[in-house]
Amino acid sequence: MAEDPLSHPALDKAAGEEFLQEAFQIILEEAVRKGTDVKEKVCDWREPHDLQKILDLEMRSSGEPQQRVLELCRDVIHYSVKTCHPRFFNQLFSGLDPHALVGRMITETLNTSQYTYEIAPVFVLMEEVVLKKLRELIGWESGDGIFCPGGSLSNIYAMNVARYQRFPDSKRTGIWALPRLAVFTSQECHYSVKKGAAFLGIGTDNIYLVGVDERGKMIPADLEKQINKAKSEGACPFFVNATCGTTVLGAFDPLVDVADVCERHGAWFHVDAAWGGSALLSRRHRHLLRGIDRADSVAWNPHKMLMTGLQCSAFLLRDSSGLLQRCHCANATYLFQTDKFYDMAYDTGDKTIQCGRKVDCLKLWLMWKANGTEGLEKRVDRAFEFTRYLADEIKKREGFQLVIEPEFVNLCFWFVPPSLQGKQGCADYWERLGKVAPAIKERMMKKGSMMVGYQPLGSKVNFFRQVVTNPMVTKQDLDFFLDEIERLGTDL
Amino acid sequence: MAEDPLSHPALDKAAGEEFLQEAFQIILEEAVRKGTDVKEKVCDWREPHDLQKILDLEMRSSGEPQQRVLELCRDVIHYSVKTCHPRFFNQLFSGLDPHALVGRMITETLNTSQYTYEIAPVFVLMEEVVLKKLRELIGWESGDGIFCPGGSLSNIYAMNVARYQRFPDSKRTGIWALPRLAVFTSQECHYSVKKGAAFLGIGTDNIYLVGVDERGKMIPADLEKQINKAKSEGACPFFVNATCGTTVLGAFDPLVDVADVCERHGAWFHVDAAWGGSALLSRRHRHLLRGIDRADSVAWNPHKMLMTGLQCSAFLLRDSSGLLQRCHCANATYLFQTDKFYDMAYDTGDKTIQCGRKVDCLKLWLMWKANGTEGLEKRVDRAFEFTRYLADEIKKREGFQLVIEPEFVNLCFWFVPPSLQGKQGCADYWERLGKVAPAIKERMMKKGSMMVGYQPLGSKVNFFRQVVTNPMVTKQDLDFFLDEIERLGTDL
Repeated sequence: MAEDPLSHPALDKAAGEEFLQEAFQIILEEAVRKGTDVKEKVCDWREPHDLQKILDLEMRSSGEPQQRVLELCRDVIHYSVKTCHPRFFNQLFSGLDPHALVGRMITETLNTSQYTYEIAPVFVLMEEVVLKKLRELIGWESGDGIFCPGGSLSNIYAMNVARYQRFPDSKRTGIWALPRLAVFTSQECHYSVKKGAAFLGIGTDNIYLVGVDERGKMIPADLEKQINKAKSEGACPFFVNATCGTTVLGAFDPLVDVADVCERHGAWFHVDAAWGGSALLSRRHRHLLRGIDRADSVAWNPHKMLMTGLQCSAFLLRDSSGLLQRCHCANATYLFQTDKFYDMAYDTGDKTIQCGRKVDCLKLWLMWKANGTEGLEKRVDRAFEFTRYLADEIKKREGFQLVIEPEFVNLCFWFVPPSLQGKQGCADYWERLGKVAPAIKERMMKKGSMMVGYQPLGSKVNFFRQVVTNPMVTKQDLDFFLDEIERLGTDL
Repeated sequence: MAEDPLSHPALDKAAGEEFLQEAFQIILEEAVRKGTDVKEKVCDWREPHDLQKILDLEMRSSGEPQQRVLELCRDVIHYSVKTCHPRFFNQLFSGLDPHALVGRMITETLNTSQYTYEIAPVFVLMEEVVLKKLRELIGWESGDGIFCPGGSLSNIYAMNVARYQRFPDSKRTGIWALPRLAVFTSQECHYSVKKGAAFLGIGTDNIYLVGVDERGKMIPADLEKQINKAKSEGACPFFVNATCGTTVLGAFDPLVDVADVCERHGAWFHVDAAWGGSALLSRRHRHLLRGIDRADSVAWNPHKMLMTGLQCSAFLLRDSSGLLQRCHCANATYLFQTDKFYDMAYDTGDKTIQCGRKVDCLKLWLMWKANGTEGLEKRVDRAFEFTRYLADEIKKREGFQLVIEPEFVNLCFWFVPPSLQGKQGCADYWERLGKVAPAIKERMMKKGSMMVGYQPLGSKVNFFRQVVTNPMVTKQDLDFFLDEIERLGTDL
């Protein structure tokens, strides 16, 4: 008689460990070592249909042998973009911090959910400490908060909490009986404000776009004007979103003045500092966020400038009365029992609309422990210095033109190829210039030499937006960056 | 003159790699090896204030030395719950699949965001393949979908897409001009339906709770009754949520009959199969979800039964006309440029309300590659067999009483200590029984011998809900599980 298979584990522990060891060495070699090596490509680019052929993506009835699975790991890494590469300037995140990475690996291995103390004792306490630290940098002595899966959701949470605070019954009744709710934000704000208004049932038409000055900063007088306009149209101005570090230009709205307007009109004051929040770590540059302590809520993504790895998005609240919990709670009795043997105030999971929630605090905490606040400050300052360096270099070089003088670490510029230099007066100048960045981008992608983003903005045609946050970057990489753009674009 | 610090990287690559190597060995030893060893504790339990003292959580100005950081890693792992332990039965997820873990580690190391082909070429293609595979198991030949940070958000997405499909203008105008929207779900549904109705501005009062039978399954006739009631009250019944695998009892709503009702009333038919969806992998048990192919949308969390690791939550749609994209898009020009050099249909990021989105497909894909569909099927079948085994053992043992005969892998039971046996007639019997599970839970946590959840449900006082999904579990662990409950509760 065959032995009962249930008497034996159905996973081979030793084989599993061996696979982990082998795969980890592949990760180290292919992703960490080669990924940060300037002699390697940022990405070995393939068109979708070619990549589909190269990668054997099909999921079959039978499993593949261990060695084949290791090869697949190699392929996945090889054809992926190396966001840790010193010549990757495409996103608001880049680089690879080994301490944060270890934090993420521990998180993945322990694989727990951040909703109750009993299942995540270390992380419930740790999240509290980390959020407190971020609040201190904002300038709040008390408050509340939670890590969200992304800054978009943090902004959407803010809008929902603001609505609940003003109209607590709407959680039960819906918003039919409420006046039309009006949201105020600048035209340079992140698109999640739009997504949020749609998602929460408020509607994108009820967003009043506030004008910006030539630097992309919200004009407080126009905010006041828009609020009065909304009021005269019978709407309820309940929520103002100010941005610290707009996505493209890196602009900071004038928070003190915006706070004054909010106060006058009793509107919730939210600051989307998803990108710019990390400047609070720099004693030299934190003045950009002056007035942030007057916000009702703040979104801040340490996974951007601070390199913790996606996601690490804090939603922070000034309120310490439990508003967040009251707004989002559903009191599920199977999870948040009221007869536990420990202090149930530690079961914080009902503050979110998620149920299972990944641990996002460990990577930031471990990196902070290893580097100290001062180490992180140095990284932030370095990013500013590099931006300054590049802006100055651009001014020295023919064919490069700043879109705007940077005050943060977004460097926006056009490359004007020789064929267009001195032709600003021509009727098709801007149209032709708008095609330069996409063409250079295509060439750099296919060559794999580096990666930087471009986009149009309002009446400004396609320009590059370069961002350095990776501390592995050196001046040599930035010189290469400008040289390479010239090389790739000189014949356009 | 001091050398310019910008000419050198500010991160020591060699030291970083050494740290990664050392930390990885700690992870292997403390989390993987000890974490899956029955001779070790599931958790070395400490009260919050004690744990706060043991862990040095404070984030300081100066960084700690490397060896101290490694010690901190050890401490974090040591005092955390080992959800991979063969005696961890507390959640709907457990166990540790080495292939999924490697997928997660690659994801973390590559650290990219799943929004455009240019930044995530491998993962954009891979997500498509993985979602297609899940749709095939549902029985759909075409469709759409996206990975969400959790099943709660998948359910909330469903509600939002259903609203948009019925009232597309509401994305712009908000829901003020809409009739009152009515949501239908059973009283056993996951609490995210409630959270979603509140979040989307619909309000929890507009949820009509449908009655369930004695097994916790939605009664289709009552659904019809509730829909007619809502209509007579002037509401618009736009969304029906059926559950496959309720959280506590593991009940499956009768999908075919619910589909008929939805069809008759033109309501969106969503199936929350976050928990039960993985039964689709089992030829023997997939009948539990008969009719799921008639759903308009499905939520399915492979991170639960299939052990991919948090989060891996698929939101799947039958629609293939681009409804998801139209519902959620904001067309940010800095990210979703329309003048790219590759087919921009591969830029799928605007299907979500997130901007940056973690890669959630790789871990499932790699695990599937290694095990094949058949390997995963075996795991699912094994979980069913274990549940059967435990249910039979419980019937044999004095003092154990099933709450309900299991049809899925939730095993719900009371332990009746000797002092209460034969006292069912006593006035305080149920009150006293309700205190047994919390008391046993406290003891097992403090001893660290195992972990299982309890909760009340309706008129039923606190009972245990045991779930086995970890293939490392053996019959011996389950025998230990019952013995240990007896040992811990016999004097109560």
